[in-house]
Parts: sequence; structure tokens; C-alpha cells
Amino acid sequence: MFPRYNVIVVGAGHAGCEAAAAAANLGSRVLLITMNMGTIAQMSCNPAMGGVAKGQIVREIDALGGYSGIIADKSTIQFRMLNLSKGPAMWSPRTQNDRMRFAEEWRIQLEQIPNVDFWQDMVKEIIIKNGKANGVVTSLGISIEADAVVLTNGTFLNGIIHIGEKKIGGGRTAEKAATGLTEQLIDLGFESGRMKTGTPPRVDGRSLDYSKMEEQWGDEKRGKFSFKDIKLPTEQRCCWITYTNQQVHETLKEGFEQSPMFTGRIKGLGPRYCPSIEDKINRFAERDRHQIFVEPEGWRTHEIYVNGFSTSLPEDVQYRALTQIPGFEKVKMFRPGYAIEYDYFPPMQLDLTLETKLIKHLFFAGQINGTTGYEEAASQGLLAGINAHQRINDLHELVLKRSESYIGVLIDDLVTKGTEEPYRMFTSRAEHRLLLRQDNADIRLTPLAYELGLATEEAIQRVNKKIADTDYIVKYIKKTSVQANAMNPILVERGSSPLTQNIKMFNVLSRPQISIYDIATADTQLKELLQKYTEETIEQAEIRVKYESYFDKELEIISKMKKMEDREINPSFDYNQLISLSKEAREKLIKIKPRTLGQASRISGVSPADISVLMVHMS
Amino acid sequence: MFPRYNVIVVGAGHAGCEAAAAAANLGSRVLLITMNMGTIAQMSCNPAMGGVAKGQIVREIDALGGYSGIIADKSTIQFRMLNLSKGPAMWSPRTQNDRMRFAEEWRIQLEQIPNVDFWQDMVKEIIIKNGKANGVVTSLGISIEADAVVLTNGTFLNGIIHIGEKKIGGGRTAEKAATGLTEQLIDLGFESGRMKTGTPPRVDGRSLDYSKMEEQWGDEKRGKFSFKDIKLPTEQRCCWITYTNQQVHETLKEGFEQSPMFTGRIKGLGPRYCPSIEDKINRFAERDRHQIFVEPEGWRTHEIYVNGFSTSLPEDVQYRALTQIPGFEKVKMFRPGYAIEYDYFPPMQLDLTLETKLIKHLFFAGQINGTTGYEEAASQGLLAGINAHQRINDLHELVLKRSESYIGVLIDDLVTKGTEEPYRMFTSRAEHRLLLRQDNADIRLTPLAYELGLATEEAIQRVNKKIADTDYIVKYIKKTSVQANAMNPILVERGSSPLTQNIKMFNVLSRPQISIYDIATADTQLKELLQKYTEETIEQAEIRVKYESYFDKELEIISKMKKMEDREINPSFDYNQLISLSKEAREKLIKIKPRTLGQASRISGVSPADISVLMVHMS
Repeated sequence: MFPRYNVIVVGAGHAGCEAAAAAANLGSRVLLITMNMGTIAQMSCNPAMGGVAKGQIVREIDALGGYSGIIADKSTIQFRMLNLSKGPAMWSPRTQNDRMRFAEEWRIQLEQIPNVDFWQDMVKEIIIKNGKANGVVTSLGISIEADAVVLTNGTFLNGIIHIGEKKIGGGRTAEKAATGLTEQLIDLGFESGRMKTGTPPRVDGRSLDYSKMEEQWGDEKRGKFSFKDIKLPTEQRCCWITYTNQQVHETLKEGFEQSPMFTGRIKGLGPRYCPSIEDKINRFAERDRHQIFVEPEGWRTHEIYVNGFSTSLPEDVQYRALTQIPGFEKVKMFRPGYAIEYDYFPPMQLDLTLETKLIKHLFFAGQINGTTGYEEAASQGLLAGINAHQRINDLHELVLKRSESYIGVLIDDLVTKGTEEPYRMFTSRAEHRLLLRQDNADIRLTPLAYELGLATEEAIQRVNKKIADTDYIVKYIKKTSVQANAMNPILVERGSSPLTQNIKMFNVLSRPQISIYDIATADTQLKELLQKYTEETIEQAEIRVKYESYFDKELEIISKMKKMEDREINPSFDYNQLISLSKEAREKLIKIKPRTLGQASRISGVSPADISVLMVHMS
Repeated sequence: MFPRYNVIVVGAGHAGCEAAAAAANLGSRVLLITMNMGTIAQMSCNPAMGGVAKGQIVREIDALGGYSGIIADKSTIQFRMLNLSKGPAMWSPRTQNDRMRFAEEWRIQLEQIPNVDFWQDMVKEIIIKNGKANGVVTSLGISIEADAVVLTNGTFLNGIIHIGEKKIGGGRTAEKAATGLTEQLIDLGFESGRMKTGTPPRVDGRSLDYSKMEEQWGDEKRGKFSFKDIKLPTEQRCCWITYTNQQVHETLKEGFEQSPMFTGRIKGLGPRYCPSIEDKINRFAERDRHQIFVEPEGWRTHEIYVNGFSTSLPEDVQYRALTQIPGFEKVKMFRPGYAIEYDYFPPMQLDLTLETKLIKHLFFAGQINGTTGYEEAASQGLLAGINAHQRINDLHELVLKRSESYIGVLIDDLVTKGTEEPYRMFTSRAEHRLLLRQDNADIRLTPLAYELGLATEEAIQRVNKKIADTDYIVKYIKKTSVQANAMNPILVERGSSPLTQNIKMFNVLSRPQISIYDIATADTQLKELLQKYTEETIEQAEIRVKYESYFDKELEIISKMKKMEDREINPSFDYNQLISLSKEAREKLIKIKPRTLGQASRISGVSPADISVLMVHMS
């Protein structure tokens, strides 16, 4: 009934969709198995993509040939570039999305990829042959063979939904849980754990009084995630901000004794940085209010996502507390918030390619690895899809460095340090974040995608032109002087001290208050030159000039650490022979099998002294 | 947490959506409870609306102020008026629809109705107070009070999905079944039964060879369901036709011993007129092929609905048989067909208002009453919604006559005769079908809707104008003669005998080959007159003229039967006192409590002799 496939992807959420698309675009015959053809690419939680550090990941996915950016752009109802007042490393694109459009665009996109087949069914078992994944068995009892299997089960593995004291089996609200797979993986020797996440109530926008809230509009000058040409919707929708208060908190506390979180009914750890409202009240008892983002779920629906109010308290407590929020006095709920507990597999069991160490040709991506967030999931899916294809064709793997991408940081963190609570990306996790910006994701990663065959000729030429054009502008600015008398009026206007003599544009642009366009108003030649280039290129050049010294310092650090990062450790290295290693270091090193001294140094429990022992032995 | 509602509607399929909308538009505060806010108004089976007799129902729904026609029009990907070669009573509009658009448009439409609130939850129990429905209890344990409850549970009550020998609990593929409600209703004294229905596999359009099939395009001159002004999509999509063959049938037979239908695992009766492919092969063994309609599921998706191939055979048998259909040699399935068994409540337990006889203020609509089809469900939902509102406000009920609508036939059939297999509408079920045409649904029913408050001033004025304009044209045609010498060339061209003298246009138009436009080409005055009217009105006048004698005969029959139909029987009438009644007639009459002699005469088991006994007694 089924041919043998190259890659089977289990699950069609953010991770599964990217995995299937990537493997197929590389040439693999892919079967995407989903429990419900009608719920492909659901935004299960908030109707938004990107944000701080996450927006960078979406642009990296786009640069690598993934689709999350394109789909998000097509379904955008509001775009904002966050943190514009900070340095460019903090600039983070974020969209509100039409939930239905997002899912539909992904579905249609997948259907356009010739190598992706679909099958609606639940996977109960992985077929193993000679220590390698060799296909799956479904709940219909069908065996489907494949050279590799990518698991992206999200919150579905033995999912249990909690609302107050009620427990409902399910992978998402109103959807069935997936059973059988965890048990088999444990039998095979995998270690599993439980995590929890949650979602807020959805309410009827018609019942809200927006006049009591602050409006939040999108950027007038629209940005986008994708580096490709995408036709964006022309309009944007408004969002709103309101706040909880002491009264809301008191009401919520009345439900604490029925809370599945506080009574210990939920065993799994939740996302620390995306806490439930009861968690926030509990942990930050000193704060008398918390921000609530009132987000429309699409272009035409009145459904509202109450961002910041994730909760698993009893539905009547949720309701009463909501009514005490300004603007929510007459709120009508569509459905209550809930918490969901699900199985995950601690990611130290994976290689940096996201292949499991225990079973070859088996890859894990997304929440099954203990992460949270659409962007984190999608990027793992992309990498797992790529590496599944590369692996079964004996082609080179794709492991991204921490110094070249957030995705590299994410996967290295997961595999090297593991995670006991849902892992979310932050800029602070990236030691080289100054270089990992949203503006240069294409420069950083598209060459890698092109080499793999995931970026088109057009895409790489676009990047090469961006690099060459930027270089040209930067050189021009470095070598050309500006007339003091022409420049000074603008400097004064910007509150910057006037020049006493003509100096290089480079030195003027290094002043924080001065933009490249300021200089262009004082220099006709520069003005004419800039007219030849895209805004994107000009911005890139400006960033390069303004932050050059910081970037150079960062590159120096990377180059110093390169020795460690390049110093490979044989995977069969016998740590037991090194008696001077601490016991903990030895155990961790044996378990994680770091690929390099750099990775070894990041393992928690491996001290600088241990690294010295290793270095001495290796040299 | 919830206010007291006027009407709670349980289920948000075709019946539930119409019920909620109608009750709310009449002024009731309505709560629509669905197990999943994401699956409102799913087309669970074929992506199409209307067809023979069903298209007429959709137009009747529209005339009565329902939305199914509007939603279907907005989501149409192909329109065809079926049976145009037959008389106008057989003309039947049918659309192919974009499944996602259909659901989305309904959802958005419902959100526009101020009185409709939403709640996602499963109803476990009806609250009964003093013999009346007084609200519901949900699976979250919430009690919500209301003056009336409308149940539209579709196939969800204890639903079991069958694929070959596999059984999966569920209300639809990949969705949970609803439990608890049947058990309560049985405890209350309701009689329940099991029915079964099925759906074909969905396949990947990219794997089909359309060159081996016949194209089927929509009508060039697009019609629509709604009498209102609806912006229709400008394009249409192509469908295709192919056929099974002996080889396909032989392959399917190999699966018969695993068939849940033939091995007795499915107890419920299936829809006789929408049989599974295995049923068709079994029952019509002499036929060497069956037609397969290859229907796209939307504008942009490649998903294909294999209409005519409904099956619950094992998925591998489905697959092998499909590959033997011309054009399907390389077919890839998205998901297998399946059969589903579910609880229904024999509809003789209902009053003609769709209120249950046992529990007041409790209404049933749709598949729960043993019907099949979106249109049948939607029309019952509409009437149940209307009557729930009217009932709780002590307003007059809406019971449609058999002589004025298909909906009247449907509900009278259900309530009077019951049904043991899924009931589907046919033109042959309507004894006055000549009058129950798609073209005059507005004339027949909009005045009733207007009186209730479900039709706008604009709508009734539109209908009144259509009536007046039609009358004017008909009168003109009746009184005006046409010049023989002007008319004859066209008559000869149409193969109709030439005139020997000037005669009334009416007599010329009565000839079947001649259209009103033919006469207009021979008569400048008529031509000018027609330019003042809409195509719809002109068509109406033409139908009136051409079929006047038939319509008159039909009206005469109705008038004769009116005595019987108007002859009311007191609901507390004691049939036991009439010893001359047959035993069966007495039992049935006591059970069904017919409202009129007419209804009594249609009860199976009540003979003309029994009716005479009744008449004698009553006069």
C-alpha cells in the first residue's frame, strides 16, 4: 500500500512541517503522518510568531530554506520590530497572525512540494532493524518502511489536560492524545520525563471594552521575516494592552487549592519564562499588576487570545478573575485556559544532528526534546529534516555553530546541557549575540543552505549582492571625508558636537545620534550613491560601521575559542582511562560524548580543571 | 459564570449553526456549545451542497432566513443546476465547496450575530425541571441554565468508527465521541437506536491522471442558492468523472470477509441511497461499473474527495481497489474511508415542531433524528431554532405544510412515519413537488419568515415585487396576441408548426420548444417590456405560463386534501374508545398523536378504513 520512503515525519506541527519540507526539498521521498489532516500547522497557543531571540530564529530558518517565515509573513495581521531603541542585536521581528490563514498556508505550501506525501493516522511504534529506525507501525496496524524517522510529537505523547481538578486525556484541547510510542522508546532504553505547558482562555472580543485598554498598533513601516519577496497583506489589525490588579490576584488565589500546579497533581515542570498567571502571582508576590496582551486571532474573527493569562485554575475562577481586569468586566469566554502534561525525552540523548544516540536514523525535534515555542520547534524540525536526508545519503551533516546562529546555540544547549524545564530561547543564551542579528541571518546562513541545495541560485545571488553592496558602501564611508561646514548644522540639530575640520564619514557615523541619511543630507555624492541601494543594504552598512569595533572584538573572541571548538574528541574516546577527571565529569562526558573540547567545556559538571586534564591528554 | 440563556444549542454542525442563528435572530439569547471551537460547521463528508431535492431545501432555508445558502454561495468552487433538461420542478442547484472556506464563513457569520455566545465543552446531561428542559451540564461539570435546549449531536453520540476489522471510538475521524447524553435520555424514557453512515477515502490530487477521466465543469451561467445579493467567487474549478470496473469490484470483494458491514459488526442501518461501494457491488451485482466523482476539496488544496467510493473495507483493500480505477493507477491516499455508527432517536418521539413529546422545551435536529445530509440537518436546525424561540415566548409555532415546502415534507415524514435507516430527501417524497420548486422558494416561504421576523423588509419587498412583476408579465402574455407572420420563422426554426392566424402569446409559449425570448424576438413590445425585469422574474413568468395547467391541477388536489389537513384532532383524544380501529392503527395513533386527519392518514399501519372510523366519529 505504501512504497518505502526515505524519511517518515511523525507529527505535522511547526517542527514536523519544516522537517518534511526540508528533507523533501533535498530530494528525499517523505511521508508526513498526522493524526488529523485537518489540523496541520496549528498555532496551538498564541497567534504570533517571532519576538525577542525568536524572531531571529525565524529569519535564520528562512535563510536556511525553511518556510516558517514565509508562512508567518503571508498570514500576518500585525508586524512589529521589537527593541528598536536598543542596539541592532536586540532588534527582533514579531508578528500577530491569523490562526486559520497560518495553518492553511502551511498546508497549501506542503502540498506544493512534490516529494511530500501525507497520511492521517497515529504512529504507535518505530520499526527498528539492525539498530536503525526502519519505518513505523500505525494505529491502523500498517507498517510503513523508511530509511529514517523524525519524531515531532509535540504535546501529544500521553498528553493530559488539566483544568482545576479535572483531568482530560488529550494532545491539545478537543484532540486525542497519542499513546504507545513513549512506552516503546522506554523499552528501547530511552529516558523519558514529563513536562507541562499551558495556554490562556480564549474570549469573545465583542464582550470587551477596548476603550479601557491601551491600543497597540503595528509598525507603520512594515518589516517581514522572509528575505524573499512575499506579498504582504496591506492592512494591519490593532492589539490592546491591559493589566491585572490586586483584586484579580486575590480572586485567582481563591482557586489555588484546586490548582493542579500547587497541589502536585502536575508532575512536569512548566516553562519558567512563559509562566501561568498563578505562577506569576506566586513567584512575584511583590508585583501588584501584570501585563495582559489582548490579541485578535485573525482578520475577521472576534476570538481573542488573552496573552499573559495562561492558567489551569478552575474555569469559574478564571472567569471571575478575568471580569476584574479593566475592559474585561463583561467578558464572555469561548473556552477556559488549561495546562497540559506530556512526555519528553531529555535531549542529552541526542547527537548535535538531532539523531538519537541509541537508535541510528531516528531523529527528534520540537517539544519532544523539551523545548517550548513555535520557533524553537520549527528550527529543530528543519535541522532534523536536513540531517535525516544527509545521514541516509552519507552526505555531510549540518551542525550549526554557536557563533553563527541561534539555532546552533539552541541545539548545542539542548544536547550538551539538557533541560529539565521547557527550554526557550533568549538573546542572553547566545554568547555571540552581537553577531547573530536578524539583519544578517541571510549572510550568516544562506551560503550553507545553498551548498546543501536548500537555497536557490537567486537567493544566494541576492545575499552575495547584499554583501558586495554593503562592502562598497562601508569602504566609501571609510575613505570619504565630509565637509565640516555642511555637516555641522545637522550635528548641532542632533545634539552632537560640531566638527572643527573635515573628517572621514566613518568617524561621524560612529556617533550614536547620527544616521547614514544625516550624512547624506550633507554630502550630495553619498546621497546619490545611496539611491542605488536598497534600504536593507544601507541599514546593513550603517550597522557595520556603527558597531565595527564591537564586532571585531567578538570575532577575536570567537577566533580564540576556535581552537577549543575545532579540537575534536573521538566519539569512542575512553574517559575511564583519565583518572584525574572528576567523577561527575567522567559520567557526563561518557553520556554526552561531546564532539569537541568546546562542547565538553559547556557540559554542566565539567570544570575547567577537567578540561585541562583532557587538553593535556590530547596534546 | 454563565447567565441564564434562552436557548442552548448543543453541537455546531449544519443543524446547530442554523438553530443558533435562527433563535438568536428572533431575539433569544443563545449559547452554542461545541466540543471544538476549531471545527465549527465542518463538511464532514462531501465538499458539496444541494443537488436533487436538497438544492431546493437550501433555497427554502435561505427564503426562511437561514444561512446555509449564503455560506455555500460564498465558498462555491463550482456551481451546476442539475436536471435542466427536465421540467422546472426537477431543476436542482448544487455546488462544490471549499471545505475550509465553508467552515470559516459559517464561523465568521455566527460571530456577527450579537445574541450568539460560544462555549467549547461536551454536554453530558440535560437539566430537567418540571418536565421541561432547563439547561445542560457539561463535561467540565458546569451547569448552564436555559429555557430551551436544542440537541444537534450529529454522529457524535457514542460514535464508533470502523475500518475493516478495526474499531475506533470517535465522532468523526480524529475527533472524540460524545458520551453520557444517550444514557440519560434512555433513562428519561426515550427510545434510541443505532445508525451508520460512511465516507470515502481522501486522496492526493497530484497522484491522479486526469487525462483518463471526463472533465466536469460548472455552469457557464452561474446560479446561486441565496435569493440575496451575494458576491460570488469569479472562477470555478473543474471536477472529473471516472468509473469502477469488474476488476475493482473483484478486489473489493476480497475484503468482504473483513467488512464490518457484512460480518455483522455494524448493527446500525446505513443510508440506502448513499450506499458504500461494497453495498453497491453487493446489491447491484449485475452492474459492471459505478460512477466516481472526483471532487476537489477547495480552491488551492490538492486533496480530492472520491465521491461514490464510500467504504469501510480494510484500508489496504481500499487502496488496491482504487489503483484499478482509470486515472487512479498511481493514487496516494491521505486517509482511508470509514463507516461510523452512532446513536439516534427515532423521530416519532417528536412533535412537528421538533420538540420532544417526552420533555418539553427539548428539541432535536439533524442526524440525531435519523436523517442524513447537510441540507436535511440544516433545515431541521433552522426549524428547531425557530420553534424553540417561539415556544419559550408563547408565540405561534412554525410548522411547514407538505404542500408548501420540502422541509414540511421532511419533518412530517420523520415525525409521522419515523425512519429506520438514514432519511434522505428525494423529489419523489413530495407529492406536490411540482409546486415545491427552487425558483419559487422565496415566494412560498419568505412571507412566513417575514411574519416571524426572520426576513428583512428588503427581502419581503423583493419577493412582493417578484410576485407583482411576474403577474404583470403573465397577464400581458395572456392578453396579448402575436403576429403570425412575425412568429412563424422562429416556430419553423424550433420545429414547431407555424401559425395560421394571430394568436395569444400564452398559447405560443405553452409549446414546449418555445421560450419567452423567442416570442420577444417576434414582438417588439414584449421585448421592450422584458427589458424592465430581471431574468429571475422573466423565468418565473415563463414557468407559470408553461406549466399553468399542471399547477392548477396540483392546487386543486391540495385544496381537496385541505379538509383532511385542516381537520384537527385533539392531542388528548382517547383512541381507545374507538373499538372499530385496527389494533395497529390504535397503537400508532396513541404513540404519534397526529395533529390532523391528514397526518393520521400518513401513518404507516393506519388504513383508509381506520381514517373513515375517525372521520365518522369526529363529524
